[in-house]
Amino acid sequence: MSESSSPKLLPSKTEVAEQLDSRDELAEVRAKFVLDYGVTYLDGNSLGALPAAVPGRLDDVVRREWGELRIRSWDESGWWTAPERIGDRIAPLVGAAAGQVVVGDSTSVNVFKALVGAVRLAGDGRDEILVDATTFPTDGYIAESAARMTGCTLRALEPGAVPGELSDRTAAVLLNHVDYRTGRLHDLPALTAAIHASGALAVWDLCHSAGALPVGLDEHGVDLAVGCTYKYLNGGPGSPAYLYVNHAHQERFDSPLPGWTSHADPFGMRPEYAPAPGATRGRVGTPDILSMLALEAALEVWDGVGIDAVRAKSLALTDFFLECVDEYVPEGRVESVTPADHARRGSQVALRCSDAGDVMARLIERGVVGDFRRPDVLRFGFTPLYVGFADVERAARVLGEVVAG
Amino acid sequence: MSESSSPKLLPSKTEVAEQLDSRDELAEVRAKFVLDYGVTYLDGNSLGALPAAVPGRLDDVVRREWGELRIRSWDESGWWTAPERIGDRIAPLVGAAAGQVVVGDSTSVNVFKALVGAVRLAGDGRDEILVDATTFPTDGYIAESAARMTGCTLRALEPGAVPGELSDRTAAVLLNHVDYRTGRLHDLPALTAAIHASGALAVWDLCHSAGALPVGLDEHGVDLAVGCTYKYLNGGPGSPAYLYVNHAHQERFDSPLPGWTSHADPFGMRPEYAPAPGATRGRVGTPDILSMLALEAALEVWDGVGIDAVRAKSLALTDFFLECVDEYVPEGRVESVTPADHARRGSQVALRCSDAGDVMARLIERGVVGDFRRPDVLRFGFTPLYVGFADVERAARVLGEVVAG
Repeated sequence: MSESSSPKLLPSKTEVAEQLDSRDELAEVRAKFVLDYGVTYLDGNSLGALPAAVPGRLDDVVRREWGELRIRSWDESGWWTAPERIGDRIAPLVGAAAGQVVVGDSTSVNVFKALVGAVRLAGDGRDEILVDATTFPTDGYIAESAARMTGCTLRALEPGAVPGELSDRTAAVLLNHVDYRTGRLHDLPALTAAIHASGALAVWDLCHSAGALPVGLDEHGVDLAVGCTYKYLNGGPGSPAYLYVNHAHQERFDSPLPGWTSHADPFGMRPEYAPAPGATRGRVGTPDILSMLALEAALEVWDGVGIDAVRAKSLALTDFFLECVDEYVPEGRVESVTPADHARRGSQVALRCSDAGDVMARLIERGVVGDFRRPDVLRFGFTPLYVGFADVERAARVLGEVVAG
Repeated sequence: MSESSSPKLLPSKTEVAEQLDSRDELAEVRAKFVLDYGVTYLDGNSLGALPAAVPGRLDDVVRREWGELRIRSWDESGWWTAPERIGDRIAPLVGAAAGQVVVGDSTSVNVFKALVGAVRLAGDGRDEILVDATTFPTDGYIAESAARMTGCTLRALEPGAVPGELSDRTAAVLLNHVDYRTGRLHDLPALTAAIHASGALAVWDLCHSAGALPVGLDEHGVDLAVGCTYKYLNGGPGSPAYLYVNHAHQERFDSPLPGWTSHADPFGMRPEYAPAPGATRGRVGTPDILSMLALEAALEVWDGVGIDAVRAKSLALTDFFLECVDEYVPEGRVESVTPADHARRGSQVALRCSDAGDVMARLIERGVVGDFRRPDVLRFGFTPLYVGFADVERAARVLGEVVAG
């Protein structure tokens, strides 16, 4: 049979999607989320979809724990210990043993704690902070403040240039594991090793990697890390972030925000500050219970799900999306700025497109939800827990129609 | 008629309570809260009771705004502007014109922003921070960090001693409007004026006054202020705090936590930080929407309620409680450490009692909920929006029975 007489030998993208979905071992996790059938949601790297367990749990927290038990819930409903308990639920997703992750505050506030803490751990004579020049802006702004307040200078560099710029002046390096714009995955093990070889501390921002791929914080000896919980961890809009302090540093970790809940004896109400041991030292003020317990309920979707399976599916999704874009989108109309190499790709695909703002508006009208990042990027995030291959095929097909039409 | 033949001329405390309740113009506000009839809740100065509007509103935020609209809610549901909008709802309760209060982060984090901001506003040559020695501990711990990170020294003083210790070295003074332990109300107008006379800035912590009495931030020219929202503002456990930056300082306010949402063009994703004008400059990271919108719903109980009426009732409640304690509690068994003078009394009564821990446990068993502050204080908070005079009479009566029994 010649190719021309048997085009069926090449299955259509719709058929491929069907095959891939039928073999997807994470397919059943989708039922744990609230999703509507008309919408292909590829913006989970901005705001994760709603896990079905959240509304009922939050209603119970509000009506019974707050409304009936009131102040007793700080003990009886486990409110007081929620930051560490939920930290321990996140820990395996980022490759951390228990007791090193604490939940609370925003990512920005945690970047400040981590970076000032790292400079103080680095010790005298080290007075430079390096930061990812392509970082999500808040990290750069907060790094500038941390540098200013610790007497350091700050330099912004491409992550690849970091190893060549480390010196015995470097106190700490703040890097993003996955770039928020391009979806590029940086080499955490190699960069952390290079930073350590210079005697500096490595601080990683996991916002765009945690929950989408293995991080291996303990394995690679990361010093400090932060991340948000509303992207691939589906904690809800502005849900509390987390701080990881490696066991090796906890005893000397010196927070710039030593609030009362990080005290060794918080109800002693002592005038002198004495930091609690362990991850608790990273706390600041009264924990934000409603958001925190919504996050805890959201994390139940991870029961029985391994991060390696998530990573395998994530790569299959982004591979398939790129193939579908190749097939459906007229040549030259968009260009992927996400690395083709698996080792350098996160869980999103960013397409450069001269009229990206208009195109995204039209995609959203057609029920394909990604987001637009100025000036010219279409950003599509693939959450393996609830995105399927048929979603991917549809998104690329609609994109092809929109840019052609 | 002689007194002995007509004891009825002195009405019983139960009768007085009934009269006072019948004349209470705020009595109907109680129906806006979820309260159970068996419990006398005098711990609203730790965690305010649940406003009835919250569960339904939060369920809609979760199911519809997050679950259905998802990322679109940042615009369409007004999530993005919530910190300023809710700030403007709190503003009149603390005597601030619109545009000066922003909601977000914990009280501790806001103390850090306010105090570092104040030191920077005070300018060169001023290198001392004064703090209330009787403060809630977190303020002292954070003040110590703020001093360390701005090159200042920190001194803790009794608030009354502050005017005598101000000098041309004083950069900022952090004071609590109402002392969390004793319920003592400090003289905000006079202390602010004294601080200003020395050229320093006044930073007030309103945790135990906002929502219970008039604060008058604008009227008295307070420079910066912070407060929590889970006590007399009933926002829920660990609900977001707020920061007030007086209009006069906003343009020069230089936050130590310049997160991306405080940027003049947050979605420009620019590498250089440029602060937003107005209260927005006090923001840090992504706003915590679930807790924030629960707070917004909670604030609806204030519709049509004036803070002067709240203050009048608060004083009547605490006066009546002290009278009832006098009548019901055996002499010498407890001693009030809350000032008798109205001008120096907040909305709580603190009773020193040698076995306060045991006594409070037994009160709670009997359905009278206050709290215990080590080593020997029984603390009772009176939220005028939902506490009535019959509650007060019952609490004092049960206290009398408990300490006698």
